[in-house]
Amino acid sequence: MSLIVAKFGGSSVATMERIRNVAERVKGLREGGQGLVVVVSAMGDTTDDLIELAKQAGSELSCREMDMLLSTGEQQSASLLALTLSNMDCEAISLTGWQAGVQSDANHSKSRIINVDPERIQQELDNGRVVVVAGFQGLSPQGDITTLGRGGSDTSAVALAAALQAERCMIFTDVDGVFTADPRIVAQARQLTSVSYDEMLELASLGAGVMQPRAVEFAMLYGVDVEILSSFSDHYGTIITEVSNMERQRIVTGVAHDLNCARFAIFDVPDQPGVAKALFRGLANARINVDMVIQSAMRDNRNDIAFTIEDDDLHKAVPVVEELVKEIGASGMVYGNNVAKVSIVGAGMQSNPGVAADMFEALADADINIHMISTSEIKVSCVIDEEHIREAVQVLHQKFGLDKIE
Amino acid sequence: MSLIVAKFGGSSVATMERIRNVAERVKGLREGGQGLVVVVSAMGDTTDDLIELAKQAGSELSCREMDMLLSTGEQQSASLLALTLSNMDCEAISLTGWQAGVQSDANHSKSRIINVDPERIQQELDNGRVVVVAGFQGLSPQGDITTLGRGGSDTSAVALAAALQAERCMIFTDVDGVFTADPRIVAQARQLTSVSYDEMLELASLGAGVMQPRAVEFAMLYGVDVEILSSFSDHYGTIITEVSNMERQRIVTGVAHDLNCARFAIFDVPDQPGVAKALFRGLANARINVDMVIQSAMRDNRNDIAFTIEDDDLHKAVPVVEELVKEIGASGMVYGNNVAKVSIVGAGMQSNPGVAADMFEALADADINIHMISTSEIKVSCVIDEEHIREAVQVLHQKFGLDKIE
Repeated sequence: MSLIVAKFGGSSVATMERIRNVAERVKGLREGGQGLVVVVSAMGDTTDDLIELAKQAGSELSCREMDMLLSTGEQQSASLLALTLSNMDCEAISLTGWQAGVQSDANHSKSRIINVDPERIQQELDNGRVVVVAGFQGLSPQGDITTLGRGGSDTSAVALAAALQAERCMIFTDVDGVFTADPRIVAQARQLTSVSYDEMLELASLGAGVMQPRAVEFAMLYGVDVEILSSFSDHYGTIITEVSNMERQRIVTGVAHDLNCARFAIFDVPDQPGVAKALFRGLANARINVDMVIQSAMRDNRNDIAFTIEDDDLHKAVPVVEELVKEIGASGMVYGNNVAKVSIVGAGMQSNPGVAADMFEALADADINIHMISTSEIKVSCVIDEEHIREAVQVLHQKFGLDKIE
Repeated sequence: MSLIVAKFGGSSVATMERIRNVAERVKGLREGGQGLVVVVSAMGDTTDDLIELAKQAGSELSCREMDMLLSTGEQQSASLLALTLSNMDCEAISLTGWQAGVQSDANHSKSRIINVDPERIQQELDNGRVVVVAGFQGLSPQGDITTLGRGGSDTSAVALAAALQAERCMIFTDVDGVFTADPRIVAQARQLTSVSYDEMLELASLGAGVMQPRAVEFAMLYGVDVEILSSFSDHYGTIITEVSNMERQRIVTGVAHDLNCARFAIFDVPDQPGVAKALFRGLANARINVDMVIQSAMRDNRNDIAFTIEDDDLHKAVPVVEELVKEIGASGMVYGNNVAKVSIVGAGMQSNPGVAADMFEALADADINIHMISTSEIKVSCVIDEEHIREAVQVLHQKFGLDKIE
């Protein structure tokens, strides 16, 4: 019997009515003759409500105890779904992360799965049951409950699919799949039938947001075929798989954008070894993630360095950068959050040298100024003024013919 | 270092404010130099709210899944208390039932503890931490989460105290301790400084209600000294311990009463072997608990049989008993719930033959008619009309000098 792992997120199980919808869906898959493991997140606001309670306990919230507290949310939704399925004559059993054999490291609140021992799940599957697993959680070598951090339930589902050698991992979400651009910005945006892991990674990290990058990495590592699809419709989804299975001639797969972007520019940085290290180590120590970094051409033994961070970190970053500017002997800095990032992504661009030029041309034709550029093997990103972001996405979607993609 | 196990019930941890009060209390005990294990129930209405959600899943609620669901309540309150303690500079760690080594049978929803492996708790105590354990739960040999049924957290606390050879198990509740009678009925009722396990068992099962009989049995079996005291005041409590440590001259320790009482009388039951069996097996099969049973003297080879059950079961019991009356060939029956039970309890009455007579005399002097009588080694119970129950408790309290008890 073939096996499918299906994951339903928090909005899909937010109420008992939605849990019944999920149960209907699961029952439908089951009647297709599939062995089924279902991974669930916590119901809608449960996690937020628990965090609110915890805040009343004080300002120092131990990650180990928060994991203990928050993991109850998924345990509840898992048992409620199992109860609902059983009442629909679809035999089911719920398992916590540790019961499902999800072993993680002890890095509480953002733990990583290190192994899955599927013995208990296999035994329940052999008994003909649908196995509902509480997502987002594992067990540390110390025997403590851990949580896997943002998007952890996606990672749980992919890891279980890998361990059980499932035919496919279906991620049910609130969108139909992965699109060539955000349909709210580009009316002609088309749903992709498949994307490669690499492309999905770039699209996900650029704010397409349907699946967490860590889960995509995990799927790539273990070669798990993932399908992103809507839990609210019967529409077909988008399959994430090896690039080898895909149409090679597709150069650009999608246009992503990210408004959560702030920019710093530091002037007259001394051109000597260790300066960049001092700057970025200082930011890392303050737990500020740096995205793009540009160092301009040298002038009189002094450089300009620009970089972007997440908007959310701006407030925290300003005093840190001010201090670092003094420390490294730069002459000053400016910053702002009125910028955004637009990117084109496609596995095919590796062998097509003109793609970046096409992108810059399209933006120039629309009179959009580019502040920063960064490229990877399958992506070109530009930082532009935030006010131009909609237009930029639209002209690039048009330029690369994405409205006609198959 | 001496060790104390302290248990706080659902009303003591109903809100974050109350959890802070509990934390203050725990910190106070800790500063007395005690090693501390704290057992908690779920916050106030959590369990009821979860049951309400589960009911929406359907009418067939698997006990295995309900245990999975409901056990999250204690896990939440345990982690919230540990977080609160840590924020008061009192190092603490929370453990689920399975992490605390509580092994139970697989009888879901009313599981019994079969063993406690205290290794993890001991390790955390050795690290100088207060260990907060989620009460009411254990782990079955199959690796499933179980719950221990009504009063399960009391049993958790006593079992942990036994396994850890704690000096004492403190049960914090919403009353100051065990009284000679219900203070709402008898103004002169006095708090007892100590009662024996046997006495506590009789008082608890008669509705004194401060501690579940199963937990008292457990304490008796393992010789654990239990203290019942208020979580809302600093008043001293009542200690439950071996009778050998107690003042032997106390004949009657308390007057208990129980309004949750309904009575059946069956007339003209054929006097032949197997009839009583048929009647009470039939009631047991319908899951109706029978309390007192009286069979009157034989008349023309036919008996009258009377028995009491809990009021709550009356509705369910009537058709069952009607059927059984036909089956055993009795001539008819009557039933009613306008009765109540009053009992005197005392370990000293075993060697005092006149105690029952004193009780009947006191009731007769007050013109209170007795419908049924039942005795055990340390208890005499009478079923009377419910309307006389307050007066009965008062005259018995007076008769046995309980207002002057030390």
